[in-house]
Amino acid sequence: MNEKRLRQLLTSIQNKEISVEEGIARLKGLPFDDLGFAKVDHHRQLRQGFPEVVYCAGKTKEQIVAIMENLVNKSENNILATRASGEVYEEVVKKIPDAVYYELARAIVVWRGEQEKRGHILVVSAGTSDIPVAEEAVITAEVMGNRVERLYDTGVAGIHRLLSQKEKLFAARVLIVVAGMEGALASVVAGLVDKPVIAVPTSVGYGANFGGLAALLTMLNSCASGVGVVNIDNGFGAGYLASLINRLGEVES
Amino acid sequence: MNEKRLRQLLTSIQNKEISVEEGIARLKGLPFDDLGFAKVDHHRQLRQGFPEVVYCAGKTKEQIVAIMENLVNKSENNILATRASGEVYEEVVKKIPDAVYYELARAIVVWRGEQEKRGHILVVSAGTSDIPVAEEAVITAEVMGNRVERLYDTGVAGIHRLLSQKEKLFAARVLIVVAGMEGALASVVAGLVDKPVIAVPTSVGYGANFGGLAALLTMLNSCASGVGVVNIDNGFGAGYLASLINRLGEVES
Amino acid sequence: MNEKRLRQLLTSIQNKEISVEEGIARLKGLPFDDLGFAKVDHHRQLRQGFPEVVYCAGKTKEQIVAIMENLVNKSENNILATRASGEVYEEVVKKIPDAVYYELARAIVVWRGEQEKRGHILVVSAGTSDIPVAEEAVITAEVMGNRVERLYDTGVAGIHRLLSQKEKLFAARVLIVVAGMEGALASVVAGLVDKPVIAVPTSVGYGANFGGLAALLTMLNSCASGVGVVNIDNGFGAGYLASLINRLGEVES
Amino acid sequence: MNEKRLRQLLTSIQNKEISVEEGIARLKGLPFDDLGFAKVDHHRQLRQGFPEVVYCAGKTKEQIVAIMENLVNKSENNILATRASGEVYEEVVKKIPDAVYYELARAIVVWRGEQEKRGHILVVSAGTSDIPVAEEAVITAEVMGNRVERLYDTGVAGIHRLLSQKEKLFAARVLIVVAGMEGALASVVAGLVDKPVIAVPTSVGYGANFGGLAALLTMLNSCASGVGVVNIDNGFGAGYLASLINRLGEVES
Amino acid sequence: MNEKRLRQLLTSIQNKEISVEEGIARLKGLPFDDLGFAKVDHHRQLRQGFPEVVYCAGKTKEQIVAIMENLVNKSENNILATRASGEVYEEVVKKIPDAVYYELARAIVVWRGEQEKRGHILVVSAGTSDIPVAEEAVITAEVMGNRVERLYDTGVAGIHRLLSQKEKLFAARVLIVVAGMEGALASVVAGLVDKPVIAVPTSVGYGANFGGLAALLTMLNSCASGVGVVNIDNGFGAGYLASLINRLGEVES
Amino acid sequence: MNEKRLRQLLTSIQNKEISVEEGIARLKGLPFDDLGFAKVDHHRQLRQGFPEVVYCAGKTKEQIVAIMENLVNKSENNILATRASGEVYEEVVKKIPDAVYYELARAIVVWRGEQEKRGHILVVSAGTSDIPVAEEAVITAEVMGNRVERLYDTGVAGIHRLLSQKEKLFAARVLIVVAGMEGALASVVAGLVDKPVIAVPTSVGYGANFGGLAALLTMLNSCASGVGVVNIDNGFGAGYLASLINRLGEVES
Amino acid sequence: MNEKRLRQLLTSIQNKEISVEEGIARLKGLPFDDLGFAKVDHHRQLRQGFPEVVYCAGKTKEQIVAIMENLVNKSENNILATRASGEVYEEVVKKIPDAVYYELARAIVVWRGEQEKRGHILVVSAGTSDIPVAEEAVITAEVMGNRVERLYDTGVAGIHRLLSQKEKLFAARVLIVVAGMEGALASVVAGLVDKPVIAVPTSVGYGANFGGLAALLTMLNSCASGVGVVNIDNGFGAGYLASLINRLGEVES
Amino acid sequence: MNEKRLRQLLTSIQNKEISVEEGIARLKGLPFDDLGFAKVDHHRQLRQGFPEVVYCAGKTKEQIVAIMENLVNKSENNILATRASGEVYEEVVKKIPDAVYYELARAIVVWRGEQEKRGHILVVSAGTSDIPVAEEAVITAEVMGNRVERLYDTGVAGIHRLLSQKEKLFAARVLIVVAGMEGALASVVAGLVDKPVIAVPTSVGYGANFGGLAALLTMLNSCASGVGVVNIDNGFGAGYLASLINRLGEVES
Repeated sequence: MNEKRLRQLLTSIQNKEISVEEGIARLKGLPFDDLGFAKVDHHRQLRQGFPEVVYCAGKTKEQIVAIMENLVNKSENNILATRASGEVYEEVVKKIPDAVYYELARAIVVWRGEQEKRGHILVVSAGTSDIPVAEEAVITAEVMGNRVERLYDTGVAGIHRLLSQKEKLFAARVLIVVAGMEGALASVVAGLVDKPVIAVPTSVGYGANFGGLAALLTMLNSCASGVGVVNIDNGFGAGYLASLINRLGEVES
Repeated sequence: MNEKRLRQLLTSIQNKEISVEEGIARLKGLPFDDLGFAKVDHHRQLRQGFPEVVYCAGKTKEQIVAIMENLVNKSENNILATRASGEVYEEVVKKIPDAVYYELARAIVVWRGEQEKRGHILVVSAGTSDIPVAEEAVITAEVMGNRVERLYDTGVAGIHRLLSQKEKLFAARVLIVVAGMEGALASVVAGLVDKPVIAVPTSVGYGANFGGLAALLTMLNSCASGVGVVNIDNGFGAGYLASLINRLGEVES
Repeated sequence: MNEKRLRQLLTSIQNKEISVEEGIARLKGLPFDDLGFAKVDHHRQLRQGFPEVVYCAGKTKEQIVAIMENLVNKSENNILATRASGEVYEEVVKKIPDAVYYELARAIVVWRGEQEKRGHILVVSAGTSDIPVAEEAVITAEVMGNRVERLYDTGVAGIHRLLSQKEKLFAARVLIVVAGMEGALASVVAGLVDKPVIAVPTSVGYGANFGGLAALLTMLNSCASGVGVVNIDNGFGAGYLASLINRLGEVES
Repeated sequence: MNEKRLRQLLTSIQNKEISVEEGIARLKGLPFDDLGFAKVDHHRQLRQGFPEVVYCAGKTKEQIVAIMENLVNKSENNILATRASGEVYEEVVKKIPDAVYYELARAIVVWRGEQEKRGHILVVSAGTSDIPVAEEAVITAEVMGNRVERLYDTGVAGIHRLLSQKEKLFAARVLIVVAGMEGALASVVAGLVDKPVIAVPTSVGYGANFGGLAALLTMLNSCASGVGVVNIDNGFGAGYLASLINRLGEVES
Repeated sequence: MNEKRLRQLLTSIQNKEISVEEGIARLKGLPFDDLGFAKVDHHRQLRQGFPEVVYCAGKTKEQIVAIMENLVNKSENNILATRASGEVYEEVVKKIPDAVYYELARAIVVWRGEQEKRGHILVVSAGTSDIPVAEEAVITAEVMGNRVERLYDTGVAGIHRLLSQKEKLFAARVLIVVAGMEGALASVVAGLVDKPVIAVPTSVGYGANFGGLAALLTMLNSCASGVGVVNIDNGFGAGYLASLINRLGEVES
Repeated sequence: MNEKRLRQLLTSIQNKEISVEEGIARLKGLPFDDLGFAKVDHHRQLRQGFPEVVYCAGKTKEQIVAIMENLVNKSENNILATRASGEVYEEVVKKIPDAVYYELARAIVVWRGEQEKRGHILVVSAGTSDIPVAEEAVITAEVMGNRVERLYDTGVAGIHRLLSQKEKLFAARVLIVVAGMEGALASVVAGLVDKPVIAVPTSVGYGANFGGLAALLTMLNSCASGVGVVNIDNGFGAGYLASLINRLGEVES
Repeated sequence: MNEKRLRQLLTSIQNKEISVEEGIARLKGLPFDDLGFAKVDHHRQLRQGFPEVVYCAGKTKEQIVAIMENLVNKSENNILATRASGEVYEEVVKKIPDAVYYELARAIVVWRGEQEKRGHILVVSAGTSDIPVAEEAVITAEVMGNRVERLYDTGVAGIHRLLSQKEKLFAARVLIVVAGMEGALASVVAGLVDKPVIAVPTSVGYGANFGGLAALLTMLNSCASGVGVVNIDNGFGAGYLASLINRLGEVES
Repeated sequence: MNEKRLRQLLTSIQNKEISVEEGIARLKGLPFDDLGFAKVDHHRQLRQGFPEVVYCAGKTKEQIVAIMENLVNKSENNILATRASGEVYEEVVKKIPDAVYYELARAIVVWRGEQEKRGHILVVSAGTSDIPVAEEAVITAEVMGNRVERLYDTGVAGIHRLLSQKEKLFAARVLIVVAGMEGALASVVAGLVDKPVIAVPTSVGYGANFGGLAALLTMLNSCASGVGVVNIDNGFGAGYLASLINRLGEVES
């Protein structure tokens, strides 16, 4: 559309229907966004298979339903709604019957057509209470077309449970480590593998945990290299970043 | 060696030179590390091209020289020493004449043979004072065999400087964004590209910057997805993580 | 009244009804406030058009209604009540039928007569969740007699949305930027315009956002100059300060 | 220049020397900055009288001298270097003999031609130790063409000193309040005047002052409205923002 | 009783009913508390007129009623229960009909006989929301036998209100200043008077107030001397300390 | 079992049913955990008398009941469930009738057979509100087979209460000190005894207590030596550590 | 002088040399300070015996000498200079030969005539490293005319040292408690006495002491009532406040 | 001596040289410390073999030498001086020729006679930079008569190094874990062993390490039980606590 508009303008100049000066003025007047085809095209092309995402926290049920209905109509992609309660889902499914609810991940997904499953992301989590964040990462990465494996309940308090799964750790292309409490798991995993590790501190804990600050600082100070940290409880962000990394191989070849 | 030792043990059992019970006892007695061939082999194989790294902060000149000489003798890889002052280099170069000093990055490198340059990492930095950290990332990634581009002095205060370089931003496989002050550059870059962004907060600033805390929190709370954060001033960590990501394509094919 | 009282005193001295020494003693005894005409007059004159403001948080419905009824009777100005719930409004409107409720801004206004609309304040906000704070700023500035424009949902994650509105940005005399999460929008806007920018961090976010601290620090450390920061979620304060700035031109001419 | 380049392009299209499709491609290929005439022109026009600013902290003497020489050659504006030590000045003045050093403000200025003095900014400071920051604000505002008054040593511990200067407070168009320790002065001043107040916390103090945090929080929580806060010790930022506000009246008329 | 017990022991030694060695052993065996007459007596004598205090937060209604009934039976002093809800009072008054509830102060008092009113404590508070804490201080000081004056709603945003009451400020022997938001009132008052000022930060505020931290730091960093600070919202502690100070004159004469 | 599996493998090698190379491959393939006999055996032996522990916070009633039923069937040890509400207990006791609820400690215990009571741990607590945490420590230590004494309500505000109990303090082998508010009790106790002191800060307090931070810092900075600190409110952790220390004498003799 | 000026004005009105209206105008025009006789007189009268204080930190030797010479000439009071190094003293004593240096307190005093020693302040300190702050408090209080006793090296780690000095504790009218590390001494002392306690946290300590924060929080959260806290290391503030309290008895009789 | 003094008093009563009332008065008058024989005797008996400790930080060379000479003369125990520089040692050894300096530990020891070596404490440290703190713990524990083993350079980044030393870990009675950076080592070790673990966070690291805060929070939030934490860099405290625990077995048998 924008390109069409630009072509009309340039053709009018060529046809001398409008003068060069007038053309300059109009080009100045066009909002950047209208000229921004490179970026838009570029993005559209690259973002194939990317989900549309709705962050439900702080939105009303009505708003969420309206946005999701809109997306269902306008987009061919998977649609992901994060931080969604069961009540929200009940409203959504009335309008979008094929919406699926993932209770642990607090996520709603509308799957669209076949998903080509790419590489392999491993989501490792420390304790039972960290699983909701881990599942948010899993669902996000799956919705973005990745094959995802889980390795749960492998906290460093019983490190043999982790070490007994080294095959699994070595097999992954990207690892997401989800841990609350002291968050030491990220350092230990990053010390074992030689793949990128995305660390997600969770707010699981109490007292001097300070709402996830302890795990956050632990992960930022990891003595093992190869760790990138996202915000506390940000399973979505970890799944998204892991997906960007995982598909690096395909987009260029 | 370990495998050889295990083979001797098993052969002795097969030859009935030692009994099964004795074999069990010996296997129990072997330290884990000696049995840990998978990991060791795995690592050796995968870590081809990885540098040996010496973190100089808190070490004496004598210690650094001794460690580096040792590495030169024992390893075929590039050798990287970070946080190295010019004085340290002067001592190192007396013993290792082909050691090169990168003053901005405060890094010493001993290059070993041909480096096969892989993909393309872009290091973006906000202000002049952030350059030492950015250069540490650059050198680290180069030593690990990556092709690295620089895009410096592109802070959000003059965002047209950044936007005029979108080609460069879009061309990279992995981006490292180095910024102090308020660290907003990471969000802006991650909002423009669809590649993994590694954000490095720096301690550049004063007052309510609190030694890099401001930029750190900014980057962790990025409203743009696809950002992994490393510790304040940790250029090495960013270069290392970017390298792990960048080579993902090659290691499996 | 105070001036009258002073005139009586001086007249009595002039009439020698009271001695000079007695006059000194009485003047000493007058509370400062009674002598404070300069300030009071000065203020009354300058504050023409200023609203009376009721901060509802921590007050009971009864208290709020009583204060507002009192203001309606005693003042000719617009009356603004901030942080007012819908329930509060229901009570207020029973007594003051022309009170208007602005739900998003959580504000009640009693408009009084014609408002002479002055200059132009632009309120820019980053995300949907920041809108209540932005609207509080809008209503405050409007109640104080300013023309206000809105530019919402222009976070830096999709910076082209912001850049496509540069005309709007350049047209404003004063800008209020409302942003939560990492709050980078303030730096970006201040880098684009050459007008005063009032930055309002919001508590929108989670985890390492620490209730708005992340956005607050970002804005205080802005690498772009020309930014003044108000408290987290303080839309009223921003609207008030913007109004003081915006009317600077008129008060003296 | 950019406009010229655009005109050439459009003229070539008009002349059919290049096709419409070719024109589209070239326009896509032009970096944003080259198309960004509005902003550039707009800025150049508005920024008349703006100084060029060099932030000296973290730069070498050689770098500072080189940058300032370059600015002297390329710009007609005043040139301001902040956070400059006496040693830096000694080097600068060798090359730029008319550079002036303001020791208290730690600032170097190269004055260029006549300065048209505009309105009136008042810089109020609390204690003797706050004066360097206050002076940085003063010099910055003067360099940007403002008339500036000083009101120093008026901390709230002896509030009568402040109150005895109310005339001065009432006379200013914009006020900058510089205070360390507990920083209460900003609230008191903002409660007295009805003009914009820019509050600058300083790091003056010890113990629970935490490097200026106490004053910063005080100012952000001011119970008096009309206060915008800048970073700790950021006298430059306050002078710059005050200048943007002060000239609001002139730029449009 | 303890003294009696000691006398019996010494008399038995004198009567040679028990040996010196046995006496040493028994004295060793006596718990410290039994020997602690000096302190106990000393305290009992000095604490005449001191209230018994029950801190209700975190106690059940049943516990509070039981403790207060016990105190009514065992003590002749006033009884004070702080942080008591109206519901708690309803239970207490069933058992102790002359218990009085001070709703603003959230305090229950059982007055016992005549109270000799001593000196004069002035409780100054900044905003309406600070009044509950101020009232807790008032009631505490009154229960401890002090004459207390109030000076409320005198925040620094309208400093003339405070200054118009200087007579009141100068008349007090001890001042308690209760303020939330930025807490600047303590500095201003301490700068005006030459009596001890007890500063009580309150948690009134939001955002960068951080639950009273802003006011706390302000008060600790007061540039005016003569200020002692108690915990956030600790009206009781301020009333208690003011009472200790106020009665200093009487206890020795 | 693992040892049996290993024996089978070695016997097969001895019998040449499988080759040495095959044996190496299988040994490599065995998960670490299966080879980890030393640790497992070692642990099983040492952990005699150790309870199974269920941390109830963040688990549903159904999950807790299921886990506890499972433990009852699979383990001969005492079973401890911490942070359990009364409602949880009501569900548990339906399935496990001999489960006992300790309301103050918020703990459920299933006692199994005779408990051999070892040494002597003293749990000292400062205020009434600290008792739940203290009781969690008591129950934990008792479930782990220790004799435990209590010394409650001995805060430093009335230090004679503590000093009158020095016999009790001196008699203990290990001391747990539980204190909120300013947490000074740990230093005082550690200064009196020469046994290990485990300090548990509690979140009891308000204002500048910051959720237990005040007591935590106090205990970490204890001027008396011999203090180890656990997390805020972590009564379980203190009871567990005290138990490890207390049984040190027995395990080796 | 001011009173004289007022008398002239009123006399002129009486003499009808100026009209009543003119008188009103002139009174309006008089700065507040000129009318502020009450406060000034009041203060002068009460502040008899108060020292002039020079805070040396952040002032040059020349400035300090100049200020002190000025004070010597203009004031009859004791003169106190705090935070003064030995080098500063060497310069001062050249000009003011009777200046005395108190090295531990880092204070210079110029004693003027006889000092009437009032009541009795006890300064208690915990460790050797706290003594400089304690001595600053001692000297300040002495300079303000108080009798001061010292009780040093009585930390809670060896609480018997403190308890053996209860006579001293009970004898004081006001107590200053100076403590670093965990600062528990303030609670213990306040629990023993029934006099006002001024607590001074010091920055003595390391690690989780965070520059005195640990002791500060401890003292603010004291479970013993009757404690007022001053800033970290603020011995002067404590001595000043103690002096205000101690002289309460005399000023009114 | 005290007992002698008490005996004299009681004998005088028995001999009726002084009356019972006089005896009561004198007993009241005796400082607590003089009556405190139980504690003193108890301590003397238990503290056999305990070192005298001098904390050198903040003391002058002269003070340290004087204190140590005094201890050499008055005590038969080992003498330990911590945080001692080499310069301090040079002064000490002039006066006490058999003083030994441990450079890594920054400790001076004067060994006295034969040391009976008790049990076995293992000091585990993560990185090379943590060794000074670890060595302070080692020397402290040795001086207190313990046998100490070291296990250094076993950070979790290469966890196989730690796991290969499990024999060593299992053999210790008490473990001290010293770690900076993210401090994850403490959790991992405590998850492997079933003995008390004393965790020492160090200030090694940078950026978001915040001077050891990261490691401190990690250790306090350890998901593995059985961990007691001491202050950042407090090797002495860890050695002291480990020694108290280690000798528990002997003191009672």
